[in-house]
Amino acid sequence: MTTETLTVRDLGLRARAAARVLRSLPTARKVAALHAVARELRARATGILAANARDVAAAEAAGLPAHMVDRLRLNAASLAAIAADVEAVARLPDPVGERTGEKQLPSGIRVSQMRVPLGVLGVIYESRPNVTVDVAALALMSGNAVLLRGGKETVGSNAALEDAVRAALASQDLPAEAVQVIRDPARERMLELLRLDDLVDAIIPRGGAGLHRYCVENATVPVIVGGIGVVHIYLDGSFTRDPADVARAAELIRNAKVQKPSACNALDTLLVHREALPALPAIARDLAAHGVTLRADPPALAALQAAGVEAQPATASDYGTEFLALTASIRTVGGLEEALDFIAAHGNHTDVILTRDPAQAERFVQDVDSAAVMVNASPRFNDGGQLGLGAEVAISTQKLHARGPMGLAELTTTKWVVMGDGHIRA
Amino acid sequence: MTTETLTVRDLGLRARAAARVLRSLPTARKVAALHAVARELRARATGILAANARDVAAAEAAGLPAHMVDRLRLNAASLAAIAADVEAVARLPDPVGERTGEKQLPSGIRVSQMRVPLGVLGVIYESRPNVTVDVAALALMSGNAVLLRGGKETVGSNAALEDAVRAALASQDLPAEAVQVIRDPARERMLELLRLDDLVDAIIPRGGAGLHRYCVENATVPVIVGGIGVVHIYLDGSFTRDPADVARAAELIRNAKVQKPSACNALDTLLVHREALPALPAIARDLAAHGVTLRADPPALAALQAAGVEAQPATASDYGTEFLALTASIRTVGGLEEALDFIAAHGNHTDVILTRDPAQAERFVQDVDSAAVMVNASPRFNDGGQLGLGAEVAISTQKLHARGPMGLAELTTTKWVVMGDGHIRA
Repeated sequence: MTTETLTVRDLGLRARAAARVLRSLPTARKVAALHAVARELRARATGILAANARDVAAAEAAGLPAHMVDRLRLNAASLAAIAADVEAVARLPDPVGERTGEKQLPSGIRVSQMRVPLGVLGVIYESRPNVTVDVAALALMSGNAVLLRGGKETVGSNAALEDAVRAALASQDLPAEAVQVIRDPARERMLELLRLDDLVDAIIPRGGAGLHRYCVENATVPVIVGGIGVVHIYLDGSFTRDPADVARAAELIRNAKVQKPSACNALDTLLVHREALPALPAIARDLAAHGVTLRADPPALAALQAAGVEAQPATASDYGTEFLALTASIRTVGGLEEALDFIAAHGNHTDVILTRDPAQAERFVQDVDSAAVMVNASPRFNDGGQLGLGAEVAISTQKLHARGPMGLAELTTTKWVVMGDGHIRA
Repeated sequence: MTTETLTVRDLGLRARAAARVLRSLPTARKVAALHAVARELRARATGILAANARDVAAAEAAGLPAHMVDRLRLNAASLAAIAADVEAVARLPDPVGERTGEKQLPSGIRVSQMRVPLGVLGVIYESRPNVTVDVAALALMSGNAVLLRGGKETVGSNAALEDAVRAALASQDLPAEAVQVIRDPARERMLELLRLDDLVDAIIPRGGAGLHRYCVENATVPVIVGGIGVVHIYLDGSFTRDPADVARAAELIRNAKVQKPSACNALDTLLVHREALPALPAIARDLAAHGVTLRADPPALAALQAAGVEAQPATASDYGTEFLALTASIRTVGGLEEALDFIAAHGNHTDVILTRDPAQAERFVQDVDSAAVMVNASPRFNDGGQLGLGAEVAISTQKLHARGPMGLAELTTTKWVVMGDGHIRA
């Protein structure tokens, strides 16, 4: 029986049953399952790539823009990398079963909190088929079942990948229902998933702001919002006194903006202390040479134009905007407090100060309320791999449950364990 | 200016500004603020009790049932206890500022996670005016601003309590907008609060299942659902072989059901191993003597009737039901696995095994996926004070963010702090 004949609720019930098996699974069996997944992906490479080629051809025929077609395309090398990533997840420490806060209380009971899987995850994403396998691997390693809802352009690729994962699970005597793709791309099916709050423990959207908003507006399952946000770098005057620091600032700001402009941790707005304006042309020239369009407020624009660096006047909408492209806005501020007020109004994702003044660095770290606050480091470090989590399922920009990159531990919760000997409450 | 002339959005904006002050406040200033609150409550006792007496009179005139009128009534002693509770919160450890996971990564950056307040909380509750002060104290001590929406029967009491808290904050040069009561009891105002997701970080409902469901259905702010759930005790045969154990089981089950039947951690369903049925009459007689109505399945009913203990036949709806009253259901099971299947279908809050078999205890602890799992202890221990948290704002029965009693730490989140020296991502 294929999953196509089942309702989303049926899939949820099967996931719930599978989750009960997964949650008590020893680490070694989860590792073995992931190795089986990697093997199955390699063994089925020809079929998976053929299914993907059909998706790509259909997308091209439908006139999908080339950069979107690129995102859904797999080849032998990218499929091999996906399989290797599954094996990398299998090498991560298993967070499940850890006990914290063990103590005996005055009543005599012994208590602790045991780390356990969330249960059933719902992950909604757009065109990249690698997400299907990445998320399945992270869910399995953390003991969770998962319902996956990918983009309509990748239905064939996702079905082939799901078949591989499920065959691998079955080969290990594990419930194949631990990983299920909702194959019907109709939006109504996604809505059913979002409202399955008696069966699904968390929804993790991966995609643009519109997808996140749709989930927040429509879900009764708790949603973890992430990956959306404005990234600021505040350049203090103290970081521009030494020419070597100006060169460092230019390199760091280039890294922040140019390395991957489409990433959520790429620079959006550069805040420049008035005293740092003389260093701005060197930094901006470097950005412009890498194709970055700059939109500056009047003092910054004047400094740039005087130095012959091309820039446009910024409008109000250039601030608080996530560009996801080779565009950055620049704003002049009179001091740290003005920068902090600006970030308090517009920031939530990653905010950086470049300073040589430890007191300013400390004030910045204390005051800025974003998922990541950095001193003299590129915002591109706000990433699960870069922060030492090994892998990430998403970057949360909300405050409940998880904030910043979500690795295996962020796919778990705790339960209280109380041990007594007939103890009653006084 | 009173808050009555402001929209809920205005209140949210003011709360957000206040939260920015609170989040960096040293512990000593938060402690001083709470002591000021306690002093102000005592100084204003006459006025607060007069306002409360008007609420009570209006509720009686409106024909509110006596047990609901009781819940909104304050007197000198209960107001003094509320003030003392505020001082108790001031003695709890401040979770804010703690740094965990400090390490240097291969790239050279140093990272840690810093514990910070959530920001702005929205708490929606029903008739008890003590919640107004309890929640305000927990929010302030954890560095959060809070928007409070109480029941329409307590509008006068809550206004008087809010005035006391805000006067105390102002006396300490702190923003009074840290604690704001939505004074307009119209449901539209609550809906505005539930959808204020750009300003409010979490909604915590405290009340019945209907209120929780309304929040889940309508909120775009993340909601922490709690306090709703079915409590099971599974009585294994091994706990009934020794008459002293039978007496212990009877005492524990009485504690679980009778101590506070209206509490969410009170027993709902007793699962009895077939081998433990001979001990059931002694246990049930004790419950019946304390006024508990018993609804039993056929094997248990037969055992009770043979021993002359009054009980009714259970219907399907007596299982998976939270009674919140002196009623309990009883179900006979053939063994641990059947009990676990039953709990997997109906449980999520607090589940207890009474057993002398360590292997069964271990299997129960591993398999049961509830906020609290207990061995040989009363489910009444699932409470913030009893589990060592000092105080609780609610008991979460969801899995995201917090599970079980929520104390000060559960009103916080973390932010990543990254320290570099011009580090860029490779």
